[in-house]
Amino acid sequence: MNDAIREELLINTKKWIYQAGDNIREQMEQAFKIDTKSNANDLVTDVDRATEQFFVENIKANYPDHKLIGEEGYGDKVESLDGIVWIIDPIDGTMNFVHQKRNFAISIGIYHDGIGEIGLIYNVMDDVLYTAVKGQGAYRNDTRLKPLNDEVRLETSIIAMNSIIACENKRINEKKIQQLIIDSRGTRSYGSAALEFAFLAEGIIDAYLTMQLAPWDFAAGFILVNEVGGITVQANGNPIDLLHNNTILTCNKQIYERLMNDYIELK
Amino acid sequence: MNDAIREELLINTKKWIYQAGDNIREQMEQAFKIDTKSNANDLVTDVDRATEQFFVENIKANYPDHKLIGEEGYGDKVESLDGIVWIIDPIDGTMNFVHQKRNFAISIGIYHDGIGEIGLIYNVMDDVLYTAVKGQGAYRNDTRLKPLNDEVRLETSIIAMNSIIACENKRINEKKIQQLIIDSRGTRSYGSAALEFAFLAEGIIDAYLTMQLAPWDFAAGFILVNEVGGITVQANGNPIDLLHNNTILTCNKQIYERLMNDYIELK
Repeated sequence: MNDAIREELLINTKKWIYQAGDNIREQMEQAFKIDTKSNANDLVTDVDRATEQFFVENIKANYPDHKLIGEEGYGDKVESLDGIVWIIDPIDGTMNFVHQKRNFAISIGIYHDGIGEIGLIYNVMDDVLYTAVKGQGAYRNDTRLKPLNDEVRLETSIIAMNSIIACENKRINEKKIQQLIIDSRGTRSYGSAALEFAFLAEGIIDAYLTMQLAPWDFAAGFILVNEVGGITVQANGNPIDLLHNNTILTCNKQIYERLMNDYIELK
Repeated sequence: MNDAIREELLINTKKWIYQAGDNIREQMEQAFKIDTKSNANDLVTDVDRATEQFFVENIKANYPDHKLIGEEGYGDKVESLDGIVWIIDPIDGTMNFVHQKRNFAISIGIYHDGIGEIGLIYNVMDDVLYTAVKGQGAYRNDTRLKPLNDEVRLETSIIAMNSIIACENKRINEKKIQQLIIDSRGTRSYGSAALEFAFLAEGIIDAYLTMQLAPWDFAAGFILVNEVGGITVQANGNPIDLLHNNTILTCNKQIYERLMNDYIELK
């Protein structure tokens, strides 16, 4: 992908994300103004679909040869990463949307022949946009994010996870996860994979481990974390697969070996 | 406490909290501007102390007969709740301060003969002030908080906790906590007790369970949660004790019995 195209894609995607954010905030305000008992479950479905359609229409109108994978199914049936592929989650953090009316994000990753070129994660209610362009660094609004702290150790790190993996489960050895909870400085759980990638890129957490994400949950985050020197893999250490659901470990490189060797044991 | 005194205390405390917030933000900016490798561990100690001293000085100058309990020890040796007692945490969420440079709060509760009169929790970096006055409701900035949702059930609730209580420990039956994690809609962990109380009062979480808090961690939150109809007790169901460390359950009343009967079993 040449610089001019990349630059144009970034400008357009930012514009559409801000428009989508305006629409979402307006829809939420309308819904809850009319009826304080509005069913947020119904609303999120409507907003999810409308937002994805908005992106699909704009992308198809401007880039008819690009392919598109979207959570809500308005995209294409994509079976290879050849060409330019947009991977979109219109609302990441659905439970937060429903229950908290904040702490959710729009996530868009743009790949060219399987290489992550542009990643955007927009915390809609906080109006914070995380942006990454391959080789050009990552930003939180207009502030460039620093490379991840190379002095972090497991014992001083904050790990984001869903506490469900500390419970008996079929995917991962929960005893070792419990030991990780004890050995690390602390754990956090925010309820939006896209935002957890963004927080990792900011360095406010040092790892995020999860047992099942769809490509649209991590497509943007992967690019963002790359740009600050973090690592993102499947939890068995294999490269991520952008066409299927994955287990995911994304983390500061300083603690990657410790996490893989001492704490992550898939079943 | 009569209305005039309560009103005056509220106005002064708000003013001091905003001033303290300005000071904290400025100290952080200075420290990290001069040296991006500034040790946030040292900074938080300085800021914690300076902030508590700022409140102590103002309170003593204006209300010499009031007593004061503060985390950093600049307050009084308080052995009873007679009279007016201020309970102050200058920085709640120390680990967040150090590691995230946000998601921490100033917490101030004012009690009269053991009755919670005024509670304030200030999310410093987000500039969001939660305020509660006994019998007059609770606010998030200028927006009055609604009573907690009376349709919440355990299965649709979001529970905040430190995931450490899902690990083998000496305080609480971790197996039942693991079952709670499985049975509830989801869990969250934000790393600041004061903010977790505030989020409960907002209804964005439905319970917060923790095995050890000091009075300054919950003094303001208790008043805030009261004003939206929530319940706060020790995790064994006893009333909270403002002079000692407590286990704490604060929650929406709709799920209190389920939590106590089915999931919380202290050792």
